[in-house]
Amino acid sequence: MTDFAAVRARCADFPPADEAAAAAVRARQATLTKPPGSLGRLEDIAAWLASWQGRAMPRLDLVEVLVFAGNHGVVAQGVSPYPPAVTAQMVGNFAAGGAAINQLALLAGAALRVIPLSLEAPTGDFTTDVAMTPDAFEAAVMTGYDAVDPGADLLCLGEMGIGNTTAAAVLAAALFGGDGADWAGRGTGIDDAGLGRKRDAIDRGLARHRAVLDDPLAAAACLGGRELAAILGAVIAARVHHVPVLLDGFVCTAAAAPLARLVAGGLDHAMIAHASAEAGHRRLVEALGMVPLLDLGMRLGEASGAALAVPVVRAALACHAGMASFAEAGVTDRA
Amino acid sequence: MTDFAAVRARCADFPPADEAAAAAVRARQATLTKPPGSLGRLEDIAAWLASWQGRAMPRLDLVEVLVFAGNHGVVAQGVSPYPPAVTAQMVGNFAAGGAAINQLALLAGAALRVIPLSLEAPTGDFTTDVAMTPDAFEAAVMTGYDAVDPGADLLCLGEMGIGNTTAAAVLAAALFGGDGADWAGRGTGIDDAGLGRKRDAIDRGLARHRAVLDDPLAAAACLGGRELAAILGAVIAARVHHVPVLLDGFVCTAAAAPLARLVAGGLDHAMIAHASAEAGHRRLVEALGMVPLLDLGMRLGEASGAALAVPVVRAALACHAGMASFAEAGVTDRA
Repeated sequence: MTDFAAVRARCADFPPADEAAAAAVRARQATLTKPPGSLGRLEDIAAWLASWQGRAMPRLDLVEVLVFAGNHGVVAQGVSPYPPAVTAQMVGNFAAGGAAINQLALLAGAALRVIPLSLEAPTGDFTTDVAMTPDAFEAAVMTGYDAVDPGADLLCLGEMGIGNTTAAAVLAAALFGGDGADWAGRGTGIDDAGLGRKRDAIDRGLARHRAVLDDPLAAAACLGGRELAAILGAVIAARVHHVPVLLDGFVCTAAAAPLARLVAGGLDHAMIAHASAEAGHRRLVEALGMVPLLDLGMRLGEASGAALAVPVVRAALACHAGMASFAEAGVTDRA
Repeated sequence: MTDFAAVRARCADFPPADEAAAAAVRARQATLTKPPGSLGRLEDIAAWLASWQGRAMPRLDLVEVLVFAGNHGVVAQGVSPYPPAVTAQMVGNFAAGGAAINQLALLAGAALRVIPLSLEAPTGDFTTDVAMTPDAFEAAVMTGYDAVDPGADLLCLGEMGIGNTTAAAVLAAALFGGDGADWAGRGTGIDDAGLGRKRDAIDRGLARHRAVLDDPLAAAACLGGRELAAILGAVIAARVHHVPVLLDGFVCTAAAAPLARLVAGGLDHAMIAHASAEAGHRRLVEALGMVPLLDLGMRLGEASGAALAVPVVRAALACHAGMASFAEAGVTDRA
């Protein structure tokens, strides 16, 4: 058993929030022509951007969307209505501009990159084997880590991988307790019989790997997937490089969740963009103590929810940067 | 007592939803490269746009934001922490580009127009008088009606008016039952004593005008305000001109609510953009059977919530119009 030294080393000296930058945002907000607090979470978002970018006036010049793709041995258990070939086909669709994320990234003014991880070699089936060896897991984490542009102002993360809601569910169960019945959802739309197989696969995976699941990185290696590992690496890199993160839905949140177990406040630089309609997401969001920005019944993945939240983040910054103060506008403030 | 003939005439022959256009959207959605239904409300929005624009492929070339401003006699009851002069000062701030809605409309790619309604002559104080005579009410409704560009593809509505959460609360109570304690919120941030005065003013207004409140237009005239009446007129015009509507928060929803009482399905061409943090909004939204698109703790008015939802509507259309089908992309559909 490895100690995942490469991953742990990158989590050892996380920069804290820049409280002075956040305080500067709050001070400016108190002068702007609106009742105090009346922009709600837009005000919180501006302060959050400032505190993690380390800039009193945040910027959103470079917004990056990274979508990682992987294939999963557990599809042999009949957990998805789509064949695993769809993962690579959808990567082709991303390249051709035909997927939802292409339209949403364009609308968000974000640069989209799609990174397939060894699609021709699915991970091991976690019901009978480890999903990844420690080396394979660390390599996938570092692929995600290295993919992040250190100059990005905001990073949206997402994934594509037939079978990966099963991997996300079993990883969430390993990290936060519960079993297949608690965490399995219908993913891309599995029927009742398939949902039963999915729950059962999760329960068998938890039983098989129980001995190592106290270690969140070992759990992610034994049960997760390459695209989930890459997301974890990207979230770590974003923290190191002062890049705030928008997490997408269930799979993306589960992929990032080991960091909350590894480092206290390890996900403080991340927001969950959208509350997925996938069954396990609300439970996971609650376990992490986070509140998604949007709730529009989506369950697509591909960073679609994260990209959809970018205009909200841009709106927060636009109001913060562009509004006049009471004094500038000649508007009478309250007594 | 008038019968508000001019207003009623414009509601007499509302066009129905174009079910064929909505069906065409649903048929196309079933072919796009995503699991069925996985874009959640984005799919519903595309069908809603189609059904009210009357176009199988909707468009969002001209998105209009109209903000109506008015002043209120009921401020004499001490219901707001801001002086009524702020209404005109904020209209100046809108013109100068310094308000939240200026930033949000720009980001939404929307054309903003602000329409002040006789700010120098506040409505009557509804605790002692009618807010508006029938003629004044109809004139304000028609100002809103005529303000709508018949060529708009989407209309965002909002308001500015010191004292108008009190007018909205008393109107909501008149339409849906309950009293000041049920409907009054803190508006721009009134303190406990002011909230007590606000509740009391609402109760006195309801008692004073009880005899006419069965008629939703009489209620809007006696208790509402010019900017609320103009919003009602704009919602009516939008229906006549096949323009889908995004309503903002509490005041805007209350202003439009009489139409739901006048005509069955009268607000079907409207969505509520944002669930306001103002106390009465959730109750009002429930009474109307509507589900807001966003819930970000905002309570500013100015059409800020409506403008913030425009990118969501644009995202719905972008996915619908721009995504490839399974056949076009060479992606294997489910069995």
